[in-house]
Formats: sequence, structure tokens, C-alpha cells
Amino acid sequence: MVDVLAPNATIGILGGGQLGRMLSVAASRLGFKTHVFEPSAQPPAGHVADKVTTASYENAEALKAFAASVDVITYEFENVPTSALDLLESIKPIRPNRRALAVSQDRISEKEFLVDLGLKVAPFAAVDTAEDLDKAIAEIGTPAILKTRRFGYDGKGQSRIMAPVDAAKALEDVAGAPSVLEGFIDFTHEVSVIAARGQAGDVSCFDPGENVHINGILHTTTVPATLTSSQRMDAVLLAAKVLNALDYVGVMGVEIFVTKQGLVVNEIAPRVHNSGHWTQNGCVIDQFEQHIRAVAGWPLGDGKRHSNVEMLNLIGDDVDKIADYAKDGSVAIHMYGKSDVKAGRKMGHVNKITGAA
Amino acid sequence: MVDVLAPNATIGILGGGQLGRMLSVAASRLGFKTHVFEPSAQPPAGHVADKVTTASYENAEALKAFAASVDVITYEFENVPTSALDLLESIKPIRPNRRALAVSQDRISEKEFLVDLGLKVAPFAAVDTAEDLDKAIAEIGTPAILKTRRFGYDGKGQSRIMAPVDAAKALEDVAGAPSVLEGFIDFTHEVSVIAARGQAGDVSCFDPGENVHINGILHTTTVPATLTSSQRMDAVLLAAKVLNALDYVGVMGVEIFVTKQGLVVNEIAPRVHNSGHWTQNGCVIDQFEQHIRAVAGWPLGDGKRHSNVEMLNLIGDDVDKIADYAKDGSVAIHMYGKSDVKAGRKMGHVNKITGAA
Repeated sequence: MVDVLAPNATIGILGGGQLGRMLSVAASRLGFKTHVFEPSAQPPAGHVADKVTTASYENAEALKAFAASVDVITYEFENVPTSALDLLESIKPIRPNRRALAVSQDRISEKEFLVDLGLKVAPFAAVDTAEDLDKAIAEIGTPAILKTRRFGYDGKGQSRIMAPVDAAKALEDVAGAPSVLEGFIDFTHEVSVIAARGQAGDVSCFDPGENVHINGILHTTTVPATLTSSQRMDAVLLAAKVLNALDYVGVMGVEIFVTKQGLVVNEIAPRVHNSGHWTQNGCVIDQFEQHIRAVAGWPLGDGKRHSNVEMLNLIGDDVDKIADYAKDGSVAIHMYGKSDVKAGRKMGHVNKITGAA
Repeated sequence: MVDVLAPNATIGILGGGQLGRMLSVAASRLGFKTHVFEPSAQPPAGHVADKVTTASYENAEALKAFAASVDVITYEFENVPTSALDLLESIKPIRPNRRALAVSQDRISEKEFLVDLGLKVAPFAAVDTAEDLDKAIAEIGTPAILKTRRFGYDGKGQSRIMAPVDAAKALEDVAGAPSVLEGFIDFTHEVSVIAARGQAGDVSCFDPGENVHINGILHTTTVPATLTSSQRMDAVLLAAKVLNALDYVGVMGVEIFVTKQGLVVNEIAPRVHNSGHWTQNGCVIDQFEQHIRAVAGWPLGDGKRHSNVEMLNLIGDDVDKIADYAKDGSVAIHMYGKSDVKAGRKMGHVNKITGAA
């Protein structure tokens, strides 16, 4: 059943970073108000949201008041503590649903879920101890990469193992947290599909984008991606399979390695995704609005692309180049309103239109 | 000299309606915060602005606190009282400048200014008394239209005079306010140029749009407009002449009648304009961002159009059609977050993409 939000209803957003900020703007465009819940002070989303609650996810009273003030709850990141979600869900619906969060919060659950769907993933093994790691290295080989099962993002909580001798250092890097060893994939490039699923089960995907990472952080996404038409179709169908299996409502980012042996799923993110920022200037309805439409029970946009785009993240000092980007009429600037520039911090992004689609 | 706003600076916006709302979103995209000053409670811009002051333009303390909290002041409408502007300007710069406001706040000043520039306007005469009106009708003829010199918008403060016998009724309609009689122009259609001028004197115009009004309220704007290439060039040059003459900084809407005798200026509005809403989905940099860029001392966008667009205003009950518009993937929806639906009230607009430019 489709639960259509009333006009002027309020959407609660867990997380007040740049994704929450851009979700908030999209919600306002459709006539909704937003209320952002964020533990940190002065969150980027706060400048554009109707209301902000600054409180920790352990603050039950704040969570209750937040849930009572909104009509539906969504989130900008997948690592919201389970206890907070339990409390919120007892008061208002959360979309996307808990299963998507449960699966994606743990790299092992995620990979097992994908394998069960018949999708390819990198070889992997759970690692809790030094013995587990030795065994996993023997089985999977090197090079490989040790990742914490939970709370990793932008290359954090990861350590490369080029040879078995790196094992001890890798265990130190993950600080003994429950982890997973992943075999390296011999891929030619990475693409991602930004897929959306509505409450009625309708699925709509944006054209896959091609991603380049630097130091584990997304650097550029370019559309169109280098894909044959059958690869493009496979990527979209694969993403749709994931969303359908989770009875998902909202936008999901599905990162895919393109290899000689076919498409291998790198990871899924149950939220709007950095690699979908190009849609803001390449499509009539972008990923942020698409997510809000799904959450609000509206029809989805068709994902059609009117322009070719190169999205470039502005990390740390990159913001100093804004004055130059501003001179180029084919460049759309999207700043996040963060006052402190820090190395590795995502400060904004630009979408350069490179031609008509 | 160009006064470039610092990153994360705050832009003060006088007026919290839909134009202030969309200016506020554009400002956030460039990393600026906004502070909206609006006498009415719950203004549409309030949901997306960083701060809102609810106070009257007669409240000197509120005006002073507002001016002190921002880095530069702009406005969404031209009828801000002069006393408020005097006070604000003594504290922080106002862009566009006061001259543009002075000229456009009074229909007679505006027409005299345009005539001095060598531009064509409708025949007009000042009307303060019944004798003035009789004399003006004898001179200009009928049909004609009596308009208050100040505070008119969306067809308000206007009365049609089809024959001299209508004179008394027209004087009643304008309630004795200082007025102007304008002769009817035999035009084929109306177009408008959304023009921008930066602090360094650079001018950039969007492609003219073709406007259709119903009951004095804008109904649709369509790009491209029905214009020959020389008419298109003339319209743009005419607009640039107006902005240059005023040493204008920001976006201005210039409404133009297309007649067999050439282009006749209907009126100018020293602000972003309803007939420029199509730019949100037709251009990389829209009129709202263009205005913020000018105010902030940034380079202007080039005004290039990537798509053909039909903008349709949603007035009053038209909002009920939103569910249908939402099904069309080529339609971008822009709601204003107004909770009460009233006849004649602008509730939102849609931009339908009708093809690549």
C-alpha cells in the first residue's frame, strides 16, 4: 500500500551532513518541510532545514520528540545505532526499511545477501583473530584488503595486505574490530548505479556513472560510463534485483566493478550516494528528489539523462579553486556550507556539463 | 570595485515569499547562509533559510539587528518602504541599488526613465484628479488602463477604461491613489528578458521567454519565444541598456510587448522574476543563482539554455493537479510550502522540458 505524504508534511532526516542538506532542499522543492536530527553542532543540513535537533542517538527523549514532530523518517547514512532506530520505528515509519540497514551495516551480511541473490562479489572471509586472518590469507591470497565489518566509509577502517607479512599491521589498523578480508578484484573500472524503488514496487535507475577514487575517496563520477549496452543493462538489472529483494523504498547506491569475468558488486549504500550527485545537473529529477518522492509515496522520475556530466568532489583545499570554476558557465557549483576546511573533508562538488546526452 | 563575499557569509533577504525562498536555496548552493526579514509569520522562505526575522518594516530595532547579522542585503520585491531602506543602507550595502528601486517603485518615474533611454513605452499621463483623467482620456484615447503609480502587482491596483464613461468607476477602483493612465498597446505577444549585471559591469541575459497572462497573473512562460533573431537581439540589448543605465547589480525582469512597430517596454522589475522560473530546469545556472552571484561579487553564468521549457504557474486550486504532474518524468515540480490554498495565490510552478535546446 502506498502511504502518500500530505502536502506540507514534515520529513525527518537522520544525519545533517551534505546528503541531508541536499535531501532537505529536494524535500522543500516538493513542498515538504524537514526536521534534521544530528549529534554535531552546526550541521550543513541545518542551514536549509526547517528544524534541527542537536542531540545524541542515545538521547531517548530527544529521539521521541523528533519522531513525534515528523510524519516519516529517512536517513542520510547507514550507521544509525540500532537502539535509536528501534525507538524511532515504534513511533513513526522509517524508509528505507530496517532490513536494508541491517544488511548494509555489516559487510559480511551484505556479501552473503548479495551471494544469495546470485550476484558476484569479491572473495571474502570473516576475520576476528590473528588465526582467522592467517587462514583467510592462505585461502584468498594476496593482495587483499582487511576492512572492519561495520562503520567504514571513505576508505576509513581499511588496511591493504600486499603480502602475508602485512597481516599484523593490518590487524593493528582495524584495532581488533570484527573484520572481513576481501580479495582484490582485477577490475578495469568501477561504475555505480543509483537506483530508486517506490512504495508500489516500481524501480527506476539513473544511467550508471563511472567512478574514480583517490586515496579511497570518490574523486570523479562521469556519465556516460564506459560500458557496452549489455553491461549497462546488466548493471541496472542487478541493482533492481537488490532493491526488490529488500522490498526497498528510496534511493540506493550500488557500486560495481567491471571485470573481464563480468560485473562484481563492490558494495551497496542504502541512501543517496556521492556518485549520484551528477543527477542534479544531468536530469530533470535528481537522486535527492527521487529519494524524497519514494519516501513520500510519489511517482518516481524516469531517471532520464539530458546532459553528459563530470562530477568532481572538492576535498579539503580544493575549495580554493571555486573562483576558477565559477568562471566556467558549464560548471554548476554545490557547496556544503562547512565552515572549517580540513584535509580529506568533502567541502562541495561541481558538475561540469560536457554536452547534451 | 568588486566586493566578493567571503565563503559562508550571510546574505540578508528582504521578503520571505517564494522568490526569497528560491533565492535562499540558490545562496545555500554557493555556500552562503541566508537571513530572511519578513513581516508575515511562517513565510515560504523561512523553511529553507538559516534565520528568519518576523518583524514589520517600521520596527527600527529589528531592522538594525537584521542588518548587523548579515554581510549584504538584497530583496525579493520592490515595495520595501523607503524609511526601512534608509536605515538598512546606513549599516550594510543593499544590492541592487536604491536607484533601481526608486525608479521602479513609481510607474511614472519608470516610464520617464525608459523614455530618456530612447526606449518605447505605452502612451501615458499622470492622473491625480477627475480632471486629470478626463484630460488624459482625451489625449490618449480608449481603450486605456488606469494604474496606481505605486504598489501594484499581479493586476492589482488596475482598472480598464473601455470608453470615457468608465472614468468614474476607474477612479473608484484606484481609490483616489496617485495613478497613471496608459494607452493600450496593440501587441502580438509579450516576452520578457531576465537580465543580470555583475559588480564589474558585465551583463548576461537569459534567452527571452514568451509570457501568457490570465486575469493579470502570469500563466505560462515558454522558451524559446516567438521572435526573429533580430528581435531577440534587440530585446537583449534593450534590457542591457536598462541595467547599465542604473549601474544595476543583480537580476532584473524586463517585460516587453512585441508590436508591428517594434518592441515596447511594459515594465521592469528590479528582482528575480516569475517569468524567469524556467531557468531552474533550462540552464546550468538559474536566475536565482545568477542574482546571488551578482550580489556576492561572483562571475555570472553565461545564461546558456540547454533545454526548451514551458513554465506553468500553479494558482490556487491548480495544486490539486500535482499528483498528475508528478507522473510525467519531463516535469520538474517547484512548490512554495504555503499551507493555505487561496484563489489567485501562487502555490508553486512546474517546468516541463519540451526538448533539447
